[in-house]
Amino acid sequence: MNYRFIFNTIGKVLKMEGVLLLFPLITAFCYVNVDGFDPVIAFAITMGISLVLGYILTLAFKPKNQYAFAKEGLITVALAWISMSLIGALPFVISKEIPNYIDALFETISGFTTTGASILTDVELLSHGAAFWRSFTHWIGGMGVLVFVLAFARKNQDRSIHILRAEMAGPVVDKLVPRARDTAIILYVIYIALTFILFVLLLFGGMDAYESLIHAFGTAGTGGFGIKPDSLASYNNYCQWVIAIFMLIFGVNFNLYFFIIIGKISGVFKNTEFWVYIGLFLVAVAILCIDIYVQIGNFADTLRISFFQASSVMTTTGYATYDFDRWGITSKTVLYILMFIGGCAGSTAGGFKVSRVLILFKTVINNLKRVLHPRTTTVVKVQGKKLDEETIKGVTSYLTIYVFIFFILFLLLSFDPNVSSMVNSVGGNANVFETNMSAVTSCLNNIGPAFSGVGPMMSYAYYNYFSKIILSFAMLLGRLEIYPILLTFSVFSWTKK
Amino acid sequence: MNYRFIFNTIGKVLKMEGVLLLFPLITAFCYVNVDGFDPVIAFAITMGISLVLGYILTLAFKPKNQYAFAKEGLITVALAWISMSLIGALPFVISKEIPNYIDALFETISGFTTTGASILTDVELLSHGAAFWRSFTHWIGGMGVLVFVLAFARKNQDRSIHILRAEMAGPVVDKLVPRARDTAIILYVIYIALTFILFVLLLFGGMDAYESLIHAFGTAGTGGFGIKPDSLASYNNYCQWVIAIFMLIFGVNFNLYFFIIIGKISGVFKNTEFWVYIGLFLVAVAILCIDIYVQIGNFADTLRISFFQASSVMTTTGYATYDFDRWGITSKTVLYILMFIGGCAGSTAGGFKVSRVLILFKTVINNLKRVLHPRTTTVVKVQGKKLDEETIKGVTSYLTIYVFIFFILFLLLSFDPNVSSMVNSVGGNANVFETNMSAVTSCLNNIGPAFSGVGPMMSYAYYNYFSKIILSFAMLLGRLEIYPILLTFSVFSWTKK
Repeated sequence: MNYRFIFNTIGKVLKMEGVLLLFPLITAFCYVNVDGFDPVIAFAITMGISLVLGYILTLAFKPKNQYAFAKEGLITVALAWISMSLIGALPFVISKEIPNYIDALFETISGFTTTGASILTDVELLSHGAAFWRSFTHWIGGMGVLVFVLAFARKNQDRSIHILRAEMAGPVVDKLVPRARDTAIILYVIYIALTFILFVLLLFGGMDAYESLIHAFGTAGTGGFGIKPDSLASYNNYCQWVIAIFMLIFGVNFNLYFFIIIGKISGVFKNTEFWVYIGLFLVAVAILCIDIYVQIGNFADTLRISFFQASSVMTTTGYATYDFDRWGITSKTVLYILMFIGGCAGSTAGGFKVSRVLILFKTVINNLKRVLHPRTTTVVKVQGKKLDEETIKGVTSYLTIYVFIFFILFLLLSFDPNVSSMVNSVGGNANVFETNMSAVTSCLNNIGPAFSGVGPMMSYAYYNYFSKIILSFAMLLGRLEIYPILLTFSVFSWTKK
Repeated sequence: MNYRFIFNTIGKVLKMEGVLLLFPLITAFCYVNVDGFDPVIAFAITMGISLVLGYILTLAFKPKNQYAFAKEGLITVALAWISMSLIGALPFVISKEIPNYIDALFETISGFTTTGASILTDVELLSHGAAFWRSFTHWIGGMGVLVFVLAFARKNQDRSIHILRAEMAGPVVDKLVPRARDTAIILYVIYIALTFILFVLLLFGGMDAYESLIHAFGTAGTGGFGIKPDSLASYNNYCQWVIAIFMLIFGVNFNLYFFIIIGKISGVFKNTEFWVYIGLFLVAVAILCIDIYVQIGNFADTLRISFFQASSVMTTTGYATYDFDRWGITSKTVLYILMFIGGCAGSTAGGFKVSRVLILFKTVINNLKRVLHPRTTTVVKVQGKKLDEETIKGVTSYLTIYVFIFFILFLLLSFDPNVSSMVNSVGGNANVFETNMSAVTSCLNNIGPAFSGVGPMMSYAYYNYFSKIILSFAMLLGRLEIYPILLTFSVFSWTKK
């Protein structure tokens, strides 16, 4: 194991986090008349800690060589995300806005993993600096932290593709250009440009610069943190449409935008995943429209609300313009299924990813054919290309491990007596089974709000600390696609085979 | 496609069903003073229809050859089960005990697939003949109908292993002895012997012959139909313990009993699936005991109730001695997970099967090792034997198709508005999401009662006809392990490739 490489990289990440903390620090400073000096001090202290720790790690662990295999890549990514979250939670605790460290850590991991699940019962009590940092973590985590580090790394690291692979979502990660570093830069340029366009469009819609930035970050990272208790319900229709469409845009594989930039439009047309993504989305919107029309009353609003919610849930963002927990079971079931499917590979969206669903579906059809005609050889094709056995095996393995983890998390959550107490006190339709199941689904797929006790008008506040740690792990498992986190904590990593 | 073979076999199955209908006919005749002549007439008519149809089919479709490949095997099994259910539902309709044919079909499919889900709101209104037939279908369906036909087939059918494979549960079906027919006979002898022992033990416990028989059938087939609204709660502790232990016995691979008979005890000790099955069961019992102790109050009752319910749910029987829907979320979650795991392969139990879970778990561990050390070759071993790639692929494919079907069924069920109305009228903790999800889980795994609106003290009565057909399909898909039903209805089967 190349420990020096691992800890050196974590050091770089912490240095970068220190620099990024400058932005909430500035925000806190701008609003010092409103929020007082506490947030400013909190960010300044955290910035100091992050930079000092970063420098110590990079100086103490100078890697003798740059050999980083799959194993080092996975462990580096996992530990970097955990370290970053541990530090990122400090401002909330120091400023006493989220006095408990476990709560602050939950909120920070929820931010970095672009989940958007919150333990805050009243988000409006947050200072501007803290609310900014909360949304900014979405933006940082959306594209990936180590992708960022790679983009700014001076040295040419041939092995860095392992890190890109471990952090980027989806079954296959292609380098757009031969060098991983250049790929990282291209991805970040697209990401920044799209975020900026969204920011400007929201300004036009009447949001002030602060609001536009917060929501641009939340949308770009497909996170879902906002600044109002009713999420986006109180903003005008224009802003809701802009965000609905941009959530959908950020759920698309960024490679497609690269193809568009270099004029290879055929790359978009040939991308099956993209069309399946759009197709599934439209079917979901149609079902939602039919189901909620009676409740809403007019077609324009029905379409806007359906489009927004389907886009928000499928891209695993989690913004809401309506309390969808009050919808009928048809709409809720459609949304629940969208939570699992998620966005496209290579986007900022979470979930199982459309490409994996597509590969699994084709594999199922292929298997059905094989059962009927055992002697014929059939191949699974996606985008005109034959999928090799290794990819198919990778995706079915991912499904298998995903199912195991889902049930284990669901079981662990069931040990928490707080949910039952909450449900009894809330009454009505609140239900423990639905709450726990949607909490696991939501955290593992990085959605945020879900149904019943964790619905869009509720929070994760009442879960006990054990559950909050479990759900924080679920979010990390979901964002990093299981293997990095699981392997880092598994015995195999630390023992010689 | 060898149509002659398919229809000829269906004819044989219907002839056999006609003969089996003699038993409920005799029962109805014995209770003619209590129930009147209607049930007798209903069974006599159905018997006639079944025998005549059976003879017509066997005479009209004399197979020119006995070639039955995997395809014919799968389709024969699917169509035989469907035909048998279509006929088996008639007595309920003719005697007007279940006047609607869809309802009667649901009840019959629930019987044959050993699910035990009922649309009856008061089971005590059934005539003795009808109640007998309902439980007898469990016993017939438990071991498999075509296994029975095979056991009595005069000709030596070399290809009948395909039918055995399609009907028997589990990832690997071994012939115990070289000829499939002899294997079928051995399995049925063990099945009859165990059922008889149970019957006698229940007689000793104070049940009368009729009650003993009904519950012996329901237990042996791991079905769960009873004759009282509170399932087994009103029977004495002895009977509850006997049934609890026998459910567990019928959830074990029957090959193990064959090993015991021929004195190969080592075959039992080496059977990993058996030990995992017992291990998971004991863990579940322990968690249930801890969780429900406060509610029950004394240890002996807590242990009996926990043991019974874990056994009933894990073996997918569905008997209850307590309204487990009122338990806390920990116990419900444990039971919910047991529903998916199910019993051992080659038993009468449903679910995903312990052996599949075991193979998937080992595959996951193996994959984690492979991610860390991509160049090393590792093998998945179960019971000391290396599993070949085809078996692993078969199991992961089964998981994939299972997950797809689960979500499709869950979506289709969400179109039913009746559940919401029911939940609103019942009030309390009833919840649509939990009801639909547990209905799908329950039917697909052949359990019977589950949680909330389909809890042990509820029924499937209020679902609309579309949902009842969907759930009937779910039960057939679960019992025949997806492929036969799916392929019969898929286009591939009827088109040349």
